[in-house]
Amino acid sequence: MLKSAVIAIGKEIISGITQDSNSFYIASNLSRIGIYNRFIMACDDKAQDIVDVVNFCLERVDVVITTGGLGPTFDDITIESVAIALNRKLYLDTDALRFIHDFYSRLHKEGKIESGGINQKRMKMAYLIEGCKPLKNSVGAAWGVYVEQNGKHVFCLPGVPKEMKPMFEGEVLPILKDLSDSSMVVENFEVDINDESVLGELIDRVMGKYPVYIKSLPVGFDSSRMGVRITAYAQTQEQAKQRIEEAKRELINLLNNL
Amino acid sequence: MLKSAVIAIGKEIISGITQDSNSFYIASNLSRIGIYNRFIMACDDKAQDIVDVVNFCLERVDVVITTGGLGPTFDDITIESVAIALNRKLYLDTDALRFIHDFYSRLHKEGKIESGGINQKRMKMAYLIEGCKPLKNSVGAAWGVYVEQNGKHVFCLPGVPKEMKPMFEGEVLPILKDLSDSSMVVENFEVDINDESVLGELIDRVMGKYPVYIKSLPVGFDSSRMGVRITAYAQTQEQAKQRIEEAKRELINLLNNL
Repeated sequence: MLKSAVIAIGKEIISGITQDSNSFYIASNLSRIGIYNRFIMACDDKAQDIVDVVNFCLERVDVVITTGGLGPTFDDITIESVAIALNRKLYLDTDALRFIHDFYSRLHKEGKIESGGINQKRMKMAYLIEGCKPLKNSVGAAWGVYVEQNGKHVFCLPGVPKEMKPMFEGEVLPILKDLSDSSMVVENFEVDINDESVLGELIDRVMGKYPVYIKSLPVGFDSSRMGVRITAYAQTQEQAKQRIEEAKRELINLLNNL
Repeated sequence: MLKSAVIAIGKEIISGITQDSNSFYIASNLSRIGIYNRFIMACDDKAQDIVDVVNFCLERVDVVITTGGLGPTFDDITIESVAIALNRKLYLDTDALRFIHDFYSRLHKEGKIESGGINQKRMKMAYLIEGCKPLKNSVGAAWGVYVEQNGKHVFCLPGVPKEMKPMFEGEVLPILKDLSDSSMVVENFEVDINDESVLGELIDRVMGKYPVYIKSLPVGFDSSRMGVRITAYAQTQEQAKQRIEEAKRELINLLNNL
């Protein structure tokens, strides 16, 4: 099963000015296609921090996805920082350059900004990582990148959600679906018990016997019932469902015999 | 200026089932009292991952705050994992034990759970880190811990927001306010320009001259204006405000001379 990590880059996120919602969105999607997301991280727009966090993740997972830091301002340094982590150079992508030029020219023509074409800051966004597959932006100016290296897969996406989501769904998900070979199924149900510690002991026993992950979900001290979530991975959805059914049957049996 | 990191522990968070809101809440509060929060991380309920993430943060910041993993179930392993990272043992805190016993007995008496008193899983929550200051839970059963070691300050809090927040505000914030010696002021305003790349160059120049952090906030391609956020740290709030005013005056001056 592929393992992944998601990294949100940006000072607003780590300082609690902006709630990171990109990582949750991406992590949900990764789980849904059977990828085990092990880490969510957020760091500053600082080269050393980005390099350290990316390297930490690359030592532990197969897929790393970053969001943020692709824009034209001085603190948008994701591309160059990830290049350092991957020991690669940057190159000027002429397709990206043309795209950015046309993008700003169009906005200028529509009277939305003061100057069209290319300037030094805008040109920065056309420098991509050597050997990457550029990921086109269908909403904004900055392209993302996909780099495959030593069996690792690194994606850098924009931080603005309405730019990131189409790029993730249109460009990243298809690649990952090909790479991933697991199906995951999750089932939620409720049981007639309200004591998390007693339920916990039964969950231990079932997880010892069946290849599933079971989590109890307390609904509060007042309720007479509790939630149970069983997650299973397998080659196919049917196999995963079957594992869940066997584990669920065992758990309910144990509860009835309390 | 103190540096910090916030770590959310729990499989539901990294797999995109539950959005982590605790880290954002804590990071906002830390920034507000002049602490520079450098990282937000989320990892699995796995000892090695918790140890690795905690150690990564301890090498880079002064304050580490974890949420989650203090409960009675088998995957609540934060206390023992953080103890490993700090090379400390656990001990059975008799005050915590008594509290947990009374807590469950009260719920049992109120007819809310099936059995009161202590069992093996509940007792696990009374094992705290040697040398810690226990942090009492005013809502739930699990106490948190505060450990000071080699100039580092580590706090472990519950993951349930309505248990975490009172503990953070009542027990953690007072300690951190004493430790922190910086005041931070943030000012937001708008300027008559809609081109992020042109504004970016002016921001570069102002930040080169004044000890502030300036971020442009695009409000969308349609708007004729843009947002600017200036953040300053200083010994007092007045000094921080003064730095912001000087930087703001310079930026507006440059814009008027475009």
